[in-house]
Amino acid sequence: MRWRHKDLLTIDQLSKEEIFYIFEVAKKFQEVNQRPIKKLPTLKGKSIILFFAEPSTRTKTSFDIAAKRLSADTFSLTKKGSSLEKGESLKDTALTLQAMNPDLIVIRHKDSGAPFFLSKMLKCGVINAGDGQHSHPTQALLDGFTLYSLWKEFENKTLLIVGDIKHSRVARSDIELFTKLGTKVRVCGPSTLLPKSIKKWPVEVYTDLEEACKGVDAIQCLRLQLERQTSGLLPSLREYSKRYGLKLKHLELANPDVKIMHPGPMNRGVEISDEVADFKDSIILDQVTSGVCIRMALLYIYLIPPVQKD
Amino acid sequence: MRWRHKDLLTIDQLSKEEIFYIFEVAKKFQEVNQRPIKKLPTLKGKSIILFFAEPSTRTKTSFDIAAKRLSADTFSLTKKGSSLEKGESLKDTALTLQAMNPDLIVIRHKDSGAPFFLSKMLKCGVINAGDGQHSHPTQALLDGFTLYSLWKEFENKTLLIVGDIKHSRVARSDIELFTKLGTKVRVCGPSTLLPKSIKKWPVEVYTDLEEACKGVDAIQCLRLQLERQTSGLLPSLREYSKRYGLKLKHLELANPDVKIMHPGPMNRGVEISDEVADFKDSIILDQVTSGVCIRMALLYIYLIPPVQKD
Amino acid sequence: MRWRHKDLLTIDQLSKEEIFYIFEVAKKFQEVNQRPIKKLPTLKGKSIILFFAEPSTRTKTSFDIAAKRLSADTFSLTKKGSSLEKGESLKDTALTLQAMNPDLIVIRHKDSGAPFFLSKMLKCGVINAGDGQHSHPTQALLDGFTLYSLWKEFENKTLLIVGDIKHSRVARSDIELFTKLGTKVRVCGPSTLLPKSIKKWPVEVYTDLEEACKGVDAIQCLRLQLERQTSGLLPSLREYSKRYGLKLKHLELANPDVKIMHPGPMNRGVEISDEVADFKDSIILDQVTSGVCIRMALLYIYLIPPVQKD
Repeated sequence: MRWRHKDLLTIDQLSKEEIFYIFEVAKKFQEVNQRPIKKLPTLKGKSIILFFAEPSTRTKTSFDIAAKRLSADTFSLTKKGSSLEKGESLKDTALTLQAMNPDLIVIRHKDSGAPFFLSKMLKCGVINAGDGQHSHPTQALLDGFTLYSLWKEFENKTLLIVGDIKHSRVARSDIELFTKLGTKVRVCGPSTLLPKSIKKWPVEVYTDLEEACKGVDAIQCLRLQLERQTSGLLPSLREYSKRYGLKLKHLELANPDVKIMHPGPMNRGVEISDEVADFKDSIILDQVTSGVCIRMALLYIYLIPPVQKD
Repeated sequence: MRWRHKDLLTIDQLSKEEIFYIFEVAKKFQEVNQRPIKKLPTLKGKSIILFFAEPSTRTKTSFDIAAKRLSADTFSLTKKGSSLEKGESLKDTALTLQAMNPDLIVIRHKDSGAPFFLSKMLKCGVINAGDGQHSHPTQALLDGFTLYSLWKEFENKTLLIVGDIKHSRVARSDIELFTKLGTKVRVCGPSTLLPKSIKKWPVEVYTDLEEACKGVDAIQCLRLQLERQTSGLLPSLREYSKRYGLKLKHLELANPDVKIMHPGPMNRGVEISDEVADFKDSIILDQVTSGVCIRMALLYIYLIPPVQKD
Repeated sequence: MRWRHKDLLTIDQLSKEEIFYIFEVAKKFQEVNQRPIKKLPTLKGKSIILFFAEPSTRTKTSFDIAAKRLSADTFSLTKKGSSLEKGESLKDTALTLQAMNPDLIVIRHKDSGAPFFLSKMLKCGVINAGDGQHSHPTQALLDGFTLYSLWKEFENKTLLIVGDIKHSRVARSDIELFTKLGTKVRVCGPSTLLPKSIKKWPVEVYTDLEEACKGVDAIQCLRLQLERQTSGLLPSLREYSKRYGLKLKHLELANPDVKIMHPGPMNRGVEISDEVADFKDSIILDQVTSGVCIRMALLYIYLIPPVQKD
């Protein structure tokens, strides 16, 4: 494998081979995370900026842990108190950060496309940790890695994504990844929360959750942004939960051993019932564990790119 | 000593022997904190999450310094911007954190009992850094350690705790620790700020500060939460300060060399006068220094539990 | 060189020889910042508190990167959530921090003089990272270092500082540094934004920007605090920009190769036009890069003071 990418912006940019390469590296780090001494000197002397212009604890902590377990130094910036708040342009903020010679910038931003904009401007690598409604490639990779550990293959499998498909960067990145790897993808949600262009997407579309669940091997339940309610796109939380909240009865329609996923944080009782969240085949916490492994793998690959290995 | 505990939740759970063991370990780290190079490789590769759901700079910085002086990695989470704010349950937040394989979680929470709840759920160790009005064991340990360095013994001594006993987790934990070690404990405050159950506590109760001070060897002055004033439990700050603010005249009633303590931050001129705060036998800053040593000792003992030593 | 200073409070306290010594050390670190492994073990085991009681990402991140590249541990405190917010005095906060045995405290504070106050009280070193309208010595040092790398000498050169001279700690520190090194300094701004005492300062004063630009070798453009507008000191942003915004036409009046500087963050279109900000001889990003080198040099010199070297 020779790594061709300076940045990780979308899943689309990665080949199937590259995705599996990331999984292989993540697998090695999985073992490190179980050791009493969870630390390798691999990235000592590397500076990673975690620039989270949109709040996130989960993803930021996951990157931070991944970086420090590889001995890199991290520097956290939030929008609050940053120069962006003082009216500086994203371009100037980014060039300023680059002038401090970081080795990598991890960015989350509310504007779709912000990481692309940075990647063109900066010499150092950029990893997209979620941009607007557009893309969340590290989430898709950790979702894929979690199922890969269980399934060993992606073909002859069906994944269902339930919820607010329209506004979800997780849905977009998951669809890119799983279809590329050969898994059939279904989406299900109220028609107001499906994008207009959905017919052109490589997915089967459902508005009835029971129909959608029949014969699937995994279900990714999306977090419902509670503010959607006030936007007029939802009748009420109660109504949403009744029609699209995942319950035990749905799992019975799916294949045996159906895996339950959620990118978190969960609204229990809204998009997912307690019984489903705590179900024996819920792999929601495995996703979190995979997140650290995938991010260790990405930091490693992007900071010390493989030249000819394998 | 063989360490039996996964968690540190209250002083009550510790035996007298265990408390002295913690002091002995803290004593060794005291010397490290005076060196030009204040760092040991002891906890390298350990991940410690500092989860402060209630604001605190002093305690969090103390834990952070303690951890880094032992070469552990720390990850700070606050309620602000965390998933808790997005409506996630404490249980799910905790399970998510655990899924990232930390070695220890230090938690401060406004709800009494939150650390207990976590300790039952989590495989990794939990250290209570203050929960509601319930318990603040690391504060009591640092208070005990500070006096131990001076007194060498706890028997035949009297400690007075002055202020809002009712709402104070510091008072509760101090009482547990000092009575266990054989020190007599007195409490003093306006009757509105004494708990109803006070008569069952192993303390002597005073409402007159002058009486309370007679013959004591140390006085712990509690911070008055200024919001108590609006709750109707206090006549006025001025009145409180007049009756319960510690002044030089009180020290004259106490034993010679009476030690003055305060868990900080101080409201000078309210619960403590400038003269007393800056008194020659004020050990308020020694408490802060002890705090780092005690927390180094606890991180060390909980992360690398003694098996058979001593 | 034998280092005589415990603290860095103003440029005034430094001799010409000491300033050049700092530049020489910074030059060595410049090279480290270009390496793939940007880390030296020099300050391992040193604890540095970054106490930013006034928001700042740029300067704080610069110090944080500088410290970690030298293997020091850093501890960030902001006013928000600190004991200062709970009504603790600056003195008590500082003594508390000192009791945790840090090796150095870097402080930014909105009150002019706060770092001086601390320096007198604390045994550990204090570095002023900007106090009110008074002083910002590390900015002046990085400005000087940036021009030194290009000019090789400071004599026979003229620096123009444009903008709100009255409220600018950058202007004050730059004037102290550059006049000490032998550079002629001009200032230019509307008379409402010049201090009353300006006639006593060792600078040439202009209110006409075109006149001011004639024959200068470098121009430092100050950030206009947009809140000045509401204070009545400015007619309007548009008017300010028209008369004092730096544009290409001004550069033509200056010496060839005139260097353009800005301490950041820039208000493009207000105090500086896009063309000037992105001009071939704009060294605004070099200032940022120099900032890390200068701060590495200062941390090194203050934490491991030269005794007899050179």
